[in-house]
Amino acid sequence: MSATIRCFSAALALACVPAIAQTPAKPQTMQQVLDASKPSDWRRPDPANTLYLDLAAGRVVIELAPDFAPLHAKNIKALVRGHYFDGLAILRVQDNFVTQWGDPDAEDAKKARSFGDASKTVAPEFERAIDKNLPFTALPDGDVYASQVGFTNGFPSARDAKSGKTWLAHCYGMVGAGRDNGVDSGSGAELYVVIGQEPRQLDRNIALVGRVVQGMEWLSALPRGTGALGFYEKPEQRVAIRSVRLAADVPEAERTPLEILRTDTPTFTALVESRRNRRDDWYKVPAGKIGLCNVPLPVRAPPAR
Amino acid sequence: MSATIRCFSAALALACVPAIAQTPAKPQTMQQVLDASKPSDWRRPDPANTLYLDLAAGRVVIELAPDFAPLHAKNIKALVRGHYFDGLAILRVQDNFVTQWGDPDAEDAKKARSFGDASKTVAPEFERAIDKNLPFTALPDGDVYASQVGFTNGFPSARDAKSGKTWLAHCYGMVGAGRDNGVDSGSGAELYVVIGQEPRQLDRNIALVGRVVQGMEWLSALPRGTGALGFYEKPEQRVAIRSVRLAADVPEAERTPLEILRTDTPTFTALVESRRNRRDDWYKVPAGKIGLCNVPLPVRAPPAR
Repeated sequence: MSATIRCFSAALALACVPAIAQTPAKPQTMQQVLDASKPSDWRRPDPANTLYLDLAAGRVVIELAPDFAPLHAKNIKALVRGHYFDGLAILRVQDNFVTQWGDPDAEDAKKARSFGDASKTVAPEFERAIDKNLPFTALPDGDVYASQVGFTNGFPSARDAKSGKTWLAHCYGMVGAGRDNGVDSGSGAELYVVIGQEPRQLDRNIALVGRVVQGMEWLSALPRGTGALGFYEKPEQRVAIRSVRLAADVPEAERTPLEILRTDTPTFTALVESRRNRRDDWYKVPAGKIGLCNVPLPVRAPPAR
Repeated sequence: MSATIRCFSAALALACVPAIAQTPAKPQTMQQVLDASKPSDWRRPDPANTLYLDLAAGRVVIELAPDFAPLHAKNIKALVRGHYFDGLAILRVQDNFVTQWGDPDAEDAKKARSFGDASKTVAPEFERAIDKNLPFTALPDGDVYASQVGFTNGFPSARDAKSGKTWLAHCYGMVGAGRDNGVDSGSGAELYVVIGQEPRQLDRNIALVGRVVQGMEWLSALPRGTGALGFYEKPEQRVAIRSVRLAADVPEAERTPLEILRTDTPTFTALVESRRNRRDDWYKVPAGKIGLCNVPLPVRAPPAR
């Protein structure tokens, strides 16, 4: 039964499989691809575009996506620098959908926290023009929702050649700015993260602003709210936010050093292939396909040098 | 901001939208479809194929899928009737993948719990022949992994006309029987449930045996294990299973009465359409598409009669 455990795990291709050195042309497991990666296959996220959401349980690291949502990123940074989120809370956890945080008193003009230098409305950034300077690594297996999908600077993205537009995709761990019916009503003061099956119907309807790159478990494993739409019904059920800081504003010693696998390299392409066709004794029928939101985005502690 | 909350929620199409009576031919929201449903659009799961997994936190109701995994269903029922699972535990919670339960001492021949009348191996039931007597409601928007997808008796399923085979799909909430490298090594004594993005690469590689129809939050919101593959590292971290019972073996007064929307009716087709194109003030760009694992499967308490 240990074997059951061990090898069902092979589903994640991290166990069961000895790390055999192979040339890239041969089929490889994901672990083999990662073991063979070069330092240049990895990048360190820009501290000026990295948020630390600190909860009592641990730190959530979020990489912002200014290539897709520059105005939202700017406004969120203004909120963060004004300490807007410190002492606010996670308000909503809806199973198989989103965890959402912000100001529980936002509706109450008297109690609502000040936005400081930040704006209360931000122009919609639901899609943008395709730009040849923006790298795009296309996936080979299609998509139910978009004509083309792939990765741009570490973010799952979609494109439509006809409209000439590209947009971020609602995959697990993606972070967006909640909005009202007005397209400019999302300011970034209320953020959500996807915690279940990809809610791709939200694509092009709301601004995705970034992605959780570490600490996802502190947002995904919270008790589900029992109110409508997963809102916590009692204030004491809410999960307090200690602080949200920009990594650049945190002393170096208190930062969380990370490297993220680049998505515009042959190594990433090999990783995708290793996941399209699992190479180990457990899999009997390799899928031969992969969905956009099924591609893992490896993150590691920087190796000692 | 209350509006932000209220209407972002419209993402789930349950708020923001007044229930206006409409004829089925007109665009409808999901709520309108459900409000217009007839009693015959709903079914009660067979107590002889329904499991109650009782935890201290609450009850998880699992509907077995004997049409796809008859041998596994039979073996699981033998285990359940032998009280195999009572006092065992949830052993593994891997973020964005699975929660898994069974016997922590399964590897230890001296301590492992007896299987009683149940078998230690079960023939693989990873796919089966397409059968015209098995209803299949096809979805219109394709799939990355299979040539055709849809629903069979309430379960997400896939088909391949060329091979003449059909199989259950790994969507959120689907329950499967963990196995070792041997295709007959999954007995149903160790079960897992999908708690994240659809791990469709597992399709046709392992036997799905059913689906959680209520209480998913008791399995999805558990602390993630910090060991390899999400295993809990310390015994005290495990979540105890009070008991697993077949609904048919539970006194009527202790059963959880439920109705599940049938998936072979015009009402279900209307529901799928209501989710392909959201009709409310919040959505600006209806997707016009839907993925297999994005179709909700409504469950309700039986209405008073």
